Amino acid sequence: MIVEVIAVGTELLLGQIVNSNVAVIGRRLAEEGFDAHFQVTVGDNLARLTDTIRTAVLRSDAVILTGGIGPTQDDLTREAICEVAGRRMVRNEEYANVIRERIMAARGVMPENNLRQADHPEGAEQLPNANGMALGISLEHEGTWLFAVPGVPSEMRVMIEDQVLPRLRRAAGEPTVLVSRVLKTWGWGESQVAETLDDLFGSTNPSVAFLIDGMEVQVRITAKAENVDLVESLIAPVETEVRSRLGTTVFAQGEETIESILIELLSARAWRLGTAEGVTLGRVGARLAAAPGGAAVFQGALAIPAFLASGPLQLDSRPVSAEVAVAMADRAASLHGAEVAISVTDAHPYDHQGDPARTVYIGVHTPSGTRARSFRLLGEGERFRSFAITAALHTARQAITDEWREASTNSPWSWQW
Amino acid sequence: MIVEVIAVGTELLLGQIVNSNVAVIGRRLAEEGFDAHFQVTVGDNLARLTDTIRTAVLRSDAVILTGGIGPTQDDLTREAICEVAGRRMVRNEEYANVIRERIMAARGVMPENNLRQADHPEGAEQLPNANGMALGISLEHEGTWLFAVPGVPSEMRVMIEDQVLPRLRRAAGEPTVLVSRVLKTWGWGESQVAETLDDLFGSTNPSVAFLIDGMEVQVRITAKAENVDLVESLIAPVETEVRSRLGTTVFAQGEETIESILIELLSARAWRLGTAEGVTLGRVGARLAAAPGGAAVFQGALAIPAFLASGPLQLDSRPVSAEVAVAMADRAASLHGAEVAISVTDAHPYDHQGDPARTVYIGVHTPSGTRARSFRLLGEGERFRSFAITAALHTARQAITDEWREASTNSPWSWQW
Repeated sequence: MIVEVIAVGTELLLGQIVNSNVAVIGRRLAEEGFDAHFQVTVGDNLARLTDTIRTAVLRSDAVILTGGIGPTQDDLTREAICEVAGRRMVRNEEYANVIRERIMAARGVMPENNLRQADHPEGAEQLPNANGMALGISLEHEGTWLFAVPGVPSEMRVMIEDQVLPRLRRAAGEPTVLVSRVLKTWGWGESQVAETLDDLFGSTNPSVAFLIDGMEVQVRITAKAENVDLVESLIAPVETEVRSRLGTTVFAQGEETIESILIELLSARAWRLGTAEGVTLGRVGARLAAAPGGAAVFQGALAIPAFLASGPLQLDSRPVSAEVAVAMADRAASLHGAEVAISVTDAHPYDHQGDPARTVYIGVHTPSGTRARSFRLLGEGERFRSFAITAALHTARQAITDEWREASTNSPWSWQW
Repeated sequence: MIVEVIAVGTELLLGQIVNSNVAVIGRRLAEEGFDAHFQVTVGDNLARLTDTIRTAVLRSDAVILTGGIGPTQDDLTREAICEVAGRRMVRNEEYANVIRERIMAARGVMPENNLRQADHPEGAEQLPNANGMALGISLEHEGTWLFAVPGVPSEMRVMIEDQVLPRLRRAAGEPTVLVSRVLKTWGWGESQVAETLDDLFGSTNPSVAFLIDGMEVQVRITAKAENVDLVESLIAPVETEVRSRLGTTVFAQGEETIESILIELLSARAWRLGTAEGVTLGRVGARLAAAPGGAAVFQGALAIPAFLASGPLQLDSRPVSAEVAVAMADRAASLHGAEVAISVTDAHPYDHQGDPARTVYIGVHTPSGTRARSFRLLGEGERFRSFAITAALHTARQAITDEWREASTNSPWSWQW
């Protein structure tokens, strides 16, 4: 089934905003197995928009328009669909009243333009908007499905997921309920995860896929069926199998993050956390402090410059090592008055087959002792820094849950990133 | 002159990467006054790519293709242009030798595919690539200009700027050299800058425009002429006028940033800098430390959690105030052993016409004394934080250069952001 995406808006042509909507829609369509041949961006011009839809209708099974369904005179997607489908515009009077009431309540005045958001081509289905006022449109015209969704990303995303994709699945003769379970792993490289799950990637319902998110590898199990219970019964055995193969590398699922997990572990113990950071510049602490609930456990972060020369930790300037990381973590704990302290040293170069790689030591102080280990990480600048931040957060998690394991220099996570 | 942009690459359709190239090209075309009606994205498919170019040629004065000129069999832009223009493919043997030598030197093997980057439609001009191997293409066909540039952003940008835009200007009968001078300001809000320069925005050569970059307002003066000296003579008087109206709010130009300016000020005095930060979580220090040359002046950053409770600064927990900011800055200077210290308190709510606004105090310790002032900033979360970081860096700059001025509560920069 070929689906064409049309983005509507002169601001896109002028480059005032980057067209991330088509990437989001394109990715979701690809994930669900629909084909994409063209994406077209067109300005707020009725003749050109109408032409663009006509061309798309001729060469596609479905067309998704994003943008141009707001309240202003520039919003012409509804009009263009009427032109293409030869329908007249009608107003949903019931919804017009809803708009009137909401806008009067919020602003005290009600510009008539807003009622355009209750208009739609005669015979079209109006799609609910969970995050905004403009209703979407769904309409079959000469065997091609036409959908219009908002250009505002938050409104677009929900409408694509909850309204457009189920209709596309139905049109393609597929089950309409789709659920993805995302398992988040840390500790193995991409290739080790891929090898371990190799025989599962061929399956189709559920399908198993993985993607890299910085230093973490996510495994996504996706199933389709006629209802949620059936979907769950398809996912459950595969999830059990994936979890048993990946073991403790799975640290979270769905919306959980390393920050949320770490904050939960600390909160449950009424422990607070401080940091002393070289190469990560205080951003391990900042990541934690800025996360929901982080303020309750965050006790302070100290960023100290290259090679730990003097400063509030009163450490001599010397080459980084596990001993230095342990000393930093212990002193950070007492400096901040925290039960748990993370230390990140500076990095020193490590020759990895000609690629720039550096070694960084990460230490964790907890009430049961202080340990440190090294990471050999590829990359430079911000990329290297973000890997070291992630490694530090995960190292603290493992120290608290006692899942600590020593790095062997051949361990993939010691150099793969 | 109507210019159509075609992005080539299946990875764009699949949403694997966001199509920022068309936004970059769209913005530059708009800045130079060219019209854009359509942008089309098409996959690596010869028939569909050829069709897309044919359609574009019919409705545009120039067509810019980005992507599809690399070495692999998927790279079909050259072939498609040959189809559309009815030209045969020829190889630039001289450049093929350059490719051979470079790749043999780098890798020791030379896959024949790489030579495709020396191919081009007969009679087309090949455009140099400052950052990569693939040459661009420029070709006039039945009154329409066809350009092909790489999809790699760094290669694309330079080729658009140095090769494509001068040719488009010439085709449009305009002077071919264009220079922009960017002046960076801080301290006034967008509307105050706009009002102050209001009568200048109407001029066309040079043109004057402004844009918001977080808390800073940039003013861009752009002129076109036949050579650089002429362009400079057009820009100079306008720049003088703009600078005289904006006074000390202009703190940098071109590639200079608040970090580079501050690092220069500190280095010139052999001063080092430390911070103590509430709401900004250590990121004032991190911004400075991560900037080029920052390591030489950065002495440490301390992030301390909400409302300054205890910690290494040994401050009581109490409501934020100018006095607290002064105490924080003084103690940060001695904690870090730094000549200059910046402090940022936590923020407390401030009622601003129903919008979420908060007050934050920023203090600066220098060898000549310590001062603090308040900022009332709009926004929440990351947005609020980034404004506070910028305000802190600028406040330190003004303290060092003695351009300090007290905030009046009506000063636009005290609440506009």
